[in-house]
Amino acid sequence: MKAFVYKGQLSKGLEDRPKPEVIASTDAIVKITKTTICGTDLHILKGDVPTCKPGRILGHEGVGVVESVGHGVSSFKPGDRVLISCISACGKCDYCRKQMFSHCTSGGWILGNTIDGTQAEFVRVPHADNSLYPIPEGADEEALVMLSDILPTGFECGVLNGKVQPGSSVAIVGAGPIGLATLLTAQFYSPAEIIMIDLDDKRLEVANRFGATSVINSADGNAVEKIMRQTGGRGVDAAIEAVGIPATFALCEQIIAPGGTIANIGVHGVKVDLHLELLWSRNISITTRLVDTSSTPMLLRTVQSRKINAKQLVTHHFKLDQIIEAYETFGQAATTGALKVIIEAG
Amino acid sequence: MKAFVYKGQLSKGLEDRPKPEVIASTDAIVKITKTTICGTDLHILKGDVPTCKPGRILGHEGVGVVESVGHGVSSFKPGDRVLISCISACGKCDYCRKQMFSHCTSGGWILGNTIDGTQAEFVRVPHADNSLYPIPEGADEEALVMLSDILPTGFECGVLNGKVQPGSSVAIVGAGPIGLATLLTAQFYSPAEIIMIDLDDKRLEVANRFGATSVINSADGNAVEKIMRQTGGRGVDAAIEAVGIPATFALCEQIIAPGGTIANIGVHGVKVDLHLELLWSRNISITTRLVDTSSTPMLLRTVQSRKINAKQLVTHHFKLDQIIEAYETFGQAATTGALKVIIEAG
Repeated sequence: MKAFVYKGQLSKGLEDRPKPEVIASTDAIVKITKTTICGTDLHILKGDVPTCKPGRILGHEGVGVVESVGHGVSSFKPGDRVLISCISACGKCDYCRKQMFSHCTSGGWILGNTIDGTQAEFVRVPHADNSLYPIPEGADEEALVMLSDILPTGFECGVLNGKVQPGSSVAIVGAGPIGLATLLTAQFYSPAEIIMIDLDDKRLEVANRFGATSVINSADGNAVEKIMRQTGGRGVDAAIEAVGIPATFALCEQIIAPGGTIANIGVHGVKVDLHLELLWSRNISITTRLVDTSSTPMLLRTVQSRKINAKQLVTHHFKLDQIIEAYETFGQAATTGALKVIIEAG
Repeated sequence: MKAFVYKGQLSKGLEDRPKPEVIASTDAIVKITKTTICGTDLHILKGDVPTCKPGRILGHEGVGVVESVGHGVSSFKPGDRVLISCISACGKCDYCRKQMFSHCTSGGWILGNTIDGTQAEFVRVPHADNSLYPIPEGADEEALVMLSDILPTGFECGVLNGKVQPGSSVAIVGAGPIGLATLLTAQFYSPAEIIMIDLDDKRLEVANRFGATSVINSADGNAVEKIMRQTGGRGVDAAIEAVGIPATFALCEQIIAPGGTIANIGVHGVKVDLHLELLWSRNISITTRLVDTSSTPMLLRTVQSRKINAKQLVTHHFKLDQIIEAYETFGQAATTGALKVIIEAG
């Protein structure tokens, strides 16, 4: 089968690989119909993710059709159309039993990281019963690809951790796909304000279209002043960090209101300064989280009932043969305007 | 009246001052019977607290008898024995209405900070109806002085923010009065383990007596290794920082389990390193808080019903005339073994 392979820092390629087979009784083999590329895949290609070794087939998002299952799989059978979660979960360990599937002792984020992933014609999904979701009749598969990772990530790590509530004020720092997924799902809770902050006016235009109540281009260095003015000097109840660098985390520390929450989504490569000399008395929370995808069934219902339009995150389409071009388009988002790219594998 | 006055960095003294009078209709004048010294008072004397100006009467803890009240005070009358909260609260502003009394727009921590405090014969307490508590018949006043600040601080900033639960594992970094108040109140929730960490073996002996399940002297630099071994390599569910320096916060970051909470109590003078490159995916929370004293009535009932023995925090007694000596004893706790010192003012 064709598969997109990480070959070591800045080296990658489409290779011919053997079709995966059931190894454990709880495995399913899924024929991929649609997959996509995540910002995390770009980090892997740069060599930033040491757990992912050269030779790995990348990808942790996608939808497909079950090809075969191990004898321990009871919820799926060959021919079922399925959504693949970026998180594999045994459902039995201490972490799974408290819905912290991301820390499953034999799962978590393994697809396209420590085992081969979804940017291929077929993928082996461990713990299939707890890591696949049936696709409802008539569902739009492109919209559902957004449920593998970015919608639950924005929702769980940003909206839920940020305690977004009716009437509250929210700032989302970073208007990339994850920030926009946060923007879409934050609106479930009717906050009074959702301020989107980015350096790219094009992304801020998208944010406006997706429901931001105001947008701020932080290039001029006056973002803090503007946000404080907009919030009557209080700051925001939820500051959601959707970038992953010290400067954007520092911005969140400066705009958080007393009693507020800084919800970190960004994947950070270096430490940040935490100004406890200012924040110790401010009654704030800071949260971190690797998505658990515990909200996936709920989010699927919001997509199906049109509470959110997940498909508007998709900007480009490619065939699996064109995946190198897809990576280039996605990696140069500032010029291509790419948000999520759909890759059709079958 | 006699009053203990901060006169600028490292300068202090007992002075003769006019007796305070009712200024606002919601004020009460309280004749102090017992007060105490807080670690924060030592910070003020060092010049670390810029909001507190020279000339200020210090002290934000104490019990006494109401001397007079403004016409807007309805819950207290002259002769009532009262507990003074370290936090003054109007009860009407947005913050008060959500129980964030520490951020009351016309109150908060003002006693012995921005207005004269309790280390005197009399004190003016603003917003008396929401800042005083009636002392129950037969209550031990010394025990109740612990309810002005340290018990609610340990409980709210440490135990509640740290989400201490039955069966959970807790580490408290710092076995001073605040750490010990946290240890006492953490036991309300029956955690499986409470590990106390300090550099002072004498304080760790006290921690053992107060209910720690184990103690660690971190002087040898192996505290992280010991805690990880004690918790099966997971770390603790709640790491409570009760010191306020970068090294102790760093220890909390190293011992926190996935899904756990670092609850900061310490008053920090400088920033700390937050290792988001390690913690972004660990599903942790970090909390900060200035005590709101919203738990004071509840804690008063736990003291009265002997669920905790607050009086055991008291190690020394002085008269108001001896307050300089009291400060010396409290400030040199490593040699004197002082925890809380009671100062009798009347």
